[in-house]
Amino acid sequence: MESAIPGHLTVERTRHRRVPDEYVPPYEAFVARTEPHVEQVVMAYLGLQLRDRAASDTEALLRLDAAFAATDGPGHHDRSMRDDPAGYTEIVSIAYWDDPATFDRWFAEHREGWIGDDLLDSHVGRWIEVIRPTVHEFETIFNVPDRPEGVAAITKEWSEPIQEHAYWGGMRDRIPLSQTDAMPGVGTPVVERDGRRVRVRPQQGLCLIRSGQDWADTEGEDRELYLNDVEPVLRAGMDFLRDEGRPIGCYANRYLTVLSDGRPSDRSFGMSWWRSLDALERWSESHPTHVAIFGAAMKYLTTMGPSARLRLYHEVSVVDADEQYFEYLNCHENTGLLGAVE
Amino acid sequence: MESAIPGHLTVERTRHRRVPDEYVPPYEAFVARTEPHVEQVVMAYLGLQLRDRAASDTEALLRLDAAFAATDGPGHHDRSMRDDPAGYTEIVSIAYWDDPATFDRWFAEHREGWIGDDLLDSHVGRWIEVIRPTVHEFETIFNVPDRPEGVAAITKEWSEPIQEHAYWGGMRDRIPLSQTDAMPGVGTPVVERDGRRVRVRPQQGLCLIRSGQDWADTEGEDRELYLNDVEPVLRAGMDFLRDEGRPIGCYANRYLTVLSDGRPSDRSFGMSWWRSLDALERWSESHPTHVAIFGAAMKYLTTMGPSARLRLYHEVSVVDADEQYFEYLNCHENTGLLGAVE
Repeated sequence: MESAIPGHLTVERTRHRRVPDEYVPPYEAFVARTEPHVEQVVMAYLGLQLRDRAASDTEALLRLDAAFAATDGPGHHDRSMRDDPAGYTEIVSIAYWDDPATFDRWFAEHREGWIGDDLLDSHVGRWIEVIRPTVHEFETIFNVPDRPEGVAAITKEWSEPIQEHAYWGGMRDRIPLSQTDAMPGVGTPVVERDGRRVRVRPQQGLCLIRSGQDWADTEGEDRELYLNDVEPVLRAGMDFLRDEGRPIGCYANRYLTVLSDGRPSDRSFGMSWWRSLDALERWSESHPTHVAIFGAAMKYLTTMGPSARLRLYHEVSVVDADEQYFEYLNCHENTGLLGAVE
Repeated sequence: MESAIPGHLTVERTRHRRVPDEYVPPYEAFVARTEPHVEQVVMAYLGLQLRDRAASDTEALLRLDAAFAATDGPGHHDRSMRDDPAGYTEIVSIAYWDDPATFDRWFAEHREGWIGDDLLDSHVGRWIEVIRPTVHEFETIFNVPDRPEGVAAITKEWSEPIQEHAYWGGMRDRIPLSQTDAMPGVGTPVVERDGRRVRVRPQQGLCLIRSGQDWADTEGEDRELYLNDVEPVLRAGMDFLRDEGRPIGCYANRYLTVLSDGRPSDRSFGMSWWRSLDALERWSESHPTHVAIFGAAMKYLTTMGPSARLRLYHEVSVVDADEQYFEYLNCHENTGLLGAVE
């Protein structure tokens, strides 16, 4: 067992962990390890918003794939989709870089093609939401350390079983910055409109979680339990955050199905923007919708024991105002962070 | 709203609360306020262990009542009972003092009558478990501030609605000592046998919780929900702690029904001894048995809303080794802390 915080990011603490040094978690979990030379990563969410799912803009996606494959492209990308309650379908491509300078060069080259003025009259909405957390500002967790998802796809190694998990506050304790910083959310995002193009002036301490599940390996009772007893409760929580999350500090939530060769796979994830890590902690710990999710997951894990084949992971970042970029073109009013503001 | 820690017990922090200063809990809760001159309280649990419930030792109880009513007696006492799985019935009288010197005088006068050598050949087991937390070392919480239970019966006032609740870690944050101390559990209790008399050499950082519910005012759906949906889940959790708690740091658990004029009332509580506050936190937050209790309570509260009439409270203490006293006479092997040790 080792700390979720690697040695080269360990500093003298001014803030304590929530558990004593002798704490031993009741089961194993793992984190993705970035290479020591990596100082900052980029997580870019590029969304296509379609009024009609059948009218998927294949050309836009092919063009984006070509951009990803070009010089300075991301170390990893994946794609997912969802239907939003405004009647749109969103196709979200998520790309990860382990060097902001590389991303900056890539974006300088490809921003125009993705969301430039040539597309002002398009019927398809486009958006890009980017954060660039330093390695001090994000954490990951996986229940099985062999199938990378999200940012773990650009890191090179897995940790040993880690200490800081299976208690409320573990998420915070896994973020290296928590050793010295409360990571508060300060202010609120401001939407700046320029016709059909909208940008969001970001907010200090904004928090992003991508939290996923992979039921591809489940069979029989394992699969039935997940699909019948866990997934509907998860979906209800996701819907709550999407539709009613704002008063509790959830600016936006998308519950997405991962696409594999363009088709829905047995993997999904929620991605949500929060006013602060605190707000995310409070919902997770005490809101009835997440207590229900936690209870359903607990019951599933207790019932299945070691034969459970469900894979779970998440990644959580808390970023400074200058580590955020939000731009929307031809999107409806409640898209992403646009829905966060009065 | 105010802090659960009163002004006169507030010190410069070396340890942070789990929530930011601007945290506002989603519902109200209250704590009992000791008078400023009170520095330390005494919580004494005096148990009668009967092999046969029908053979209740009325004389012993009357004699104890007389002792309570005598000079230097407690400011408050109550009585409760339970059947234990070894086939015994325990009648537990709980007394509270707000001055250890007064308790010491009382105990010097009445110890012999309760558990002295004259009783060595009795068929009735007797025990006394006492802690004397300073006002820095315990906390309380009530959902309704008008019906004192436990130690609140010897305090004189209620707080305003407090800030430190409705999140995991609130219990710790309400204990004044948490401002500067992690309150670890150190070592394990040691049982010292002397024939039928057994004492326990105590352990630094031992933790006691008394956590109760009062459903006397519930009617109709409110009552049915509590009795059918909440209580059985609570009981299962109490049974788990009693029978299987040791590996997770619960030394002993008793689930007791409060007696009113000698008869069972619509009030109950669990009292349990823990290796440390940490161990209690871990069970509360993540063990399936308490996650189930929390989920059931949450569902009850969500269903009933403001018309819920269930009253809930608890008191939690973390004490130094020299603030504990445990003595058992003619008791079975698993009585109280005796069951804590190999």
